[in-house]
Amino acid sequence: MIVGVDIGGTKVAAGLVNDLGEITHKVRVPMVATGDAATGFGAVRAAVEAVFAEAPESRRSVKGIGICSPGPLDPKTGVVLNPPNVPCWRNYPLASETERAFCVPAKVDNDANAAALAETLWGAGIGYGNVFYATLGTGIGTGIIFNGKIYHGRTGSAAEGGHNTIDYRGPMCGCGKRGCIEILCSGPAIAVRARTRIGESQAPSRMVELAGGSVEQVKAEHVGKAYAEGDALATKVLDETAELLGIWLGNVVDMLEPDVMIVGGGVAELMRPFFSRISSVADQWSINPRSSEIPLVMARYGTDAGVAGAASLCR
Amino acid sequence: MIVGVDIGGTKVAAGLVNDLGEITHKVRVPMVATGDAATGFGAVRAAVEAVFAEAPESRRSVKGIGICSPGPLDPKTGVVLNPPNVPCWRNYPLASETERAFCVPAKVDNDANAAALAETLWGAGIGYGNVFYATLGTGIGTGIIFNGKIYHGRTGSAAEGGHNTIDYRGPMCGCGKRGCIEILCSGPAIAVRARTRIGESQAPSRMVELAGGSVEQVKAEHVGKAYAEGDALATKVLDETAELLGIWLGNVVDMLEPDVMIVGGGVAELMRPFFSRISSVADQWSINPRSSEIPLVMARYGTDAGVAGAASLCR
Repeated sequence: MIVGVDIGGTKVAAGLVNDLGEITHKVRVPMVATGDAATGFGAVRAAVEAVFAEAPESRRSVKGIGICSPGPLDPKTGVVLNPPNVPCWRNYPLASETERAFCVPAKVDNDANAAALAETLWGAGIGYGNVFYATLGTGIGTGIIFNGKIYHGRTGSAAEGGHNTIDYRGPMCGCGKRGCIEILCSGPAIAVRARTRIGESQAPSRMVELAGGSVEQVKAEHVGKAYAEGDALATKVLDETAELLGIWLGNVVDMLEPDVMIVGGGVAELMRPFFSRISSVADQWSINPRSSEIPLVMARYGTDAGVAGAASLCR
Repeated sequence: MIVGVDIGGTKVAAGLVNDLGEITHKVRVPMVATGDAATGFGAVRAAVEAVFAEAPESRRSVKGIGICSPGPLDPKTGVVLNPPNVPCWRNYPLASETERAFCVPAKVDNDANAAALAETLWGAGIGYGNVFYATLGTGIGTGIIFNGKIYHGRTGSAAEGGHNTIDYRGPMCGCGKRGCIEILCSGPAIAVRARTRIGESQAPSRMVELAGGSVEQVKAEHVGKAYAEGDALATKVLDETAELLGIWLGNVVDMLEPDVMIVGGGVAELMRPFFSRISSVADQWSINPRSSEIPLVMARYGTDAGVAGAASLCR
């Protein structure tokens, strides 16, 4: 059994994960990110203690504690550098503090890297050595597995594929670059595209009705619901999103030629009916003669990706 | 000593390479790519024999024969699949035929992968584990080294970064995609950009004079010469090229965070005065907090990259 801990700016989720990647117990405690470093760590400690309280036998048998923390961080040393939304930690040795507190090995990585590993060990990537993973949601995060291990790059900051641009003259991303796939295909980006298409259209759209009659309130989830009800404009919005994701994945295929591409997150759920369209665009937008053989599949883990990913670090 | 063989559509270059990556003897024979498979292989055999004739002692001491061949090919098996410009070979077992003919181990890979390895073992990448290499010329080829080894991907077709798009609505590349870095920054692309800028400009340009008075005859080399003489429009053309290369390398940094980026080829020579500009754009177009620490350097090998690269496969 492994404890997986998923730290966010406002809460810490933790769980006990078995050798099959099943999460047998789950807890959640508030994160205190604005105090001093020890108070912040107190939330991590409380989450792990809460897991042990749920499954008392695990306190003795657990073989490690894996942690997903907001970055930037150094996965080699387990030091959290200066995460914007966890201001209490500056060069904080999270892995070694955890090891000291619980007397078991601890590992720290970012959520997308960890989720990529969990999918490879236990999920949609079982049996593959080279995996490209993307979590599509409010943001777009990616993880790269080579030979069954997380690829970290020079300082642990590799695999930020969500900020690869496919349109350098395109819309400005929050990161300061233009045309990143995140500003084109994240949940908020889909909402923006929907509102634009609604504004251009003469016909009434089910998306607006679902959003309570206000175009400004249209969110990605309304696009998904309207699509499910057959709304033509919502279909167009998702098809455009699929095309952009396919172009981006075509680049990934040409650069990395992974064995499999795995997508998770709310936008991946939303785009599920368009997976074959995304695959076919990726195939067109790749020069790889065998790109069509690379599967594009849904992640095993949904909202539990952080806890499972964290645990996979100690597998 | 290793024999390196670099096969092109019209000639085969070969050389004897020592443990420092120095090419001590070099030969060149015509390639016969349009006949039968055995005739094509005859050119390879003749090139290796010519190396042995130049350095008779090497026939006994050579420890391997490395070969760069036009792709697609399978680097694991050494089988050349169906290269468009070497029609004589279809699923041709080049490595095993070479081993049979010369009774030494043989390896086959594409030129950019091989050159990336030669730079890592012997050139600008010495001391680095994760290397991104690009040859900038008539086309743009790339190679990825992870942990000191060529990264091949699923079938040996990874690292085709020259066809990563940064402008999906941009100009159509020969590969069928739009906005690939190859159609934006190869030698012919620089010439096209120069002719366009000359057409837009009112002022006379030194580029046209160097091209014998004809705009249509302006090539990348004329842009470089005019830049060296201080021509403002040529400077602008190269600066625009630098910006596009920087945007592309920013994507590479975010995805791969390599230890070093190495560029070779004629366009790399041309762009040499713009390396710091390219680096600074790559830094801006990356979210990596330490992207500015990643060196962008000139390759050690110029026109010998194929022979040295081929030899490095058997190191």
